[in-house]
Amino acid sequence: MSRARGRPRNPEADRAILQAALEVFIEGGVEGASIEQIAKRAGVGKLTVYRRWDSKEAVLAAAIETARDGIPEAPADLADLPVTTLVRKLLPGLAEAIAEPRLRAMIARIFGASVSHPELMATYWENYVVPRRRNTRALLERAQAEGTIAADADLDALIDMMVGAVLFRLVQPEPLDVAGATAYLESVYRQAGLL
Amino acid sequence: MSRARGRPRNPEADRAILQAALEVFIEGGVEGASIEQIAKRAGVGKLTVYRRWDSKEAVLAAAIETARDGIPEAPADLADLPVTTLVRKLLPGLAEAIAEPRLRAMIARIFGASVSHPELMATYWENYVVPRRRNTRALLERAQAEGTIAADADLDALIDMMVGAVLFRLVQPEPLDVAGATAYLESVYRQAGLL
Repeated sequence: MSRARGRPRNPEADRAILQAALEVFIEGGVEGASIEQIAKRAGVGKLTVYRRWDSKEAVLAAAIETARDGIPEAPADLADLPVTTLVRKLLPGLAEAIAEPRLRAMIARIFGASVSHPELMATYWENYVVPRRRNTRALLERAQAEGTIAADADLDALIDMMVGAVLFRLVQPEPLDVAGATAYLESVYRQAGLL
Repeated sequence: MSRARGRPRNPEADRAILQAALEVFIEGGVEGASIEQIAKRAGVGKLTVYRRWDSKEAVLAAAIETARDGIPEAPADLADLPVTTLVRKLLPGLAEAIAEPRLRAMIARIFGASVSHPELMATYWENYVVPRRRNTRALLERAQAEGTIAADADLDALIDMMVGAVLFRLVQPEPLDVAGATAYLESVYRQAGLL
């Protein structure tokens, strides 16, 4: 997705550029961002940016992809636990991730940009939403096998309802700390039949 | 919320300004909008806008409020029907509203602006989300009374899951026509226990 060019890379400059791009995007949205601004914030020349990415949209997509690294994966060795135990182990990491103001701001900006820049939403979708939906589906299927979720439940609808509720909470103006995020996730997971 | 000023009003110019403001907001978000652009699009002078609103944010908030008028209210005389019958009668109007590309774009832009302009999100919340949450709660309480939703269900969580799923669907890049919106709403309402 990042449409990186073939030139030799300078990892330190790349990191600075992607970091700057994310900040500029969060502050002003895609309409408020420019390569010039990103280069200035990163302390590099515009050409250094253009050598690696051919548009501000390409830099922003790469920055969104890179920000994904901060979100913890579910450890594979928990897979044999009962669903509620597994959910209890996963919730703290998830709560910490969604209480992060920069992640919330990034998601809000991606939603806003979906009108004019659907490719940023596509990058977000592929890197954040698809893996989360896959994990949620695995949990729901196990809960169905354990009998806490009805066998005829519409899992696609239920996944959208869970992911939608959480994303919806993220763009609400009320502050969200880790304790609030934990309580919110617990109420949604419980209502879904996972706790 | 609109912070209208005390000067005599020209309803026709007001309508043109609010319409232009919504278009400009949808096209470029709050960062891409300016009073100058709104006045030009509406075919009035900048001063005509400033006589009624003191900032672009105030015009945008008024435009968001006004766009609410296109969304149908639940008719009061349906109140005695069983919940599933009532939901069947409400769904077509709701599906038409959410399949409207301008409403989808407006909501996406409001989400995006929530980072820098939480007051626009507050206007949206008050005018769109609060009434929809109230209606959804009334339906869920009646479904609880009829026994199709568990007496100990967490209605706040369930409302967020329903509203969240629908809003989440609205900002996804895939097109949504009235038939698709109807099918989507049916799956969510059914999974929630309302159909």
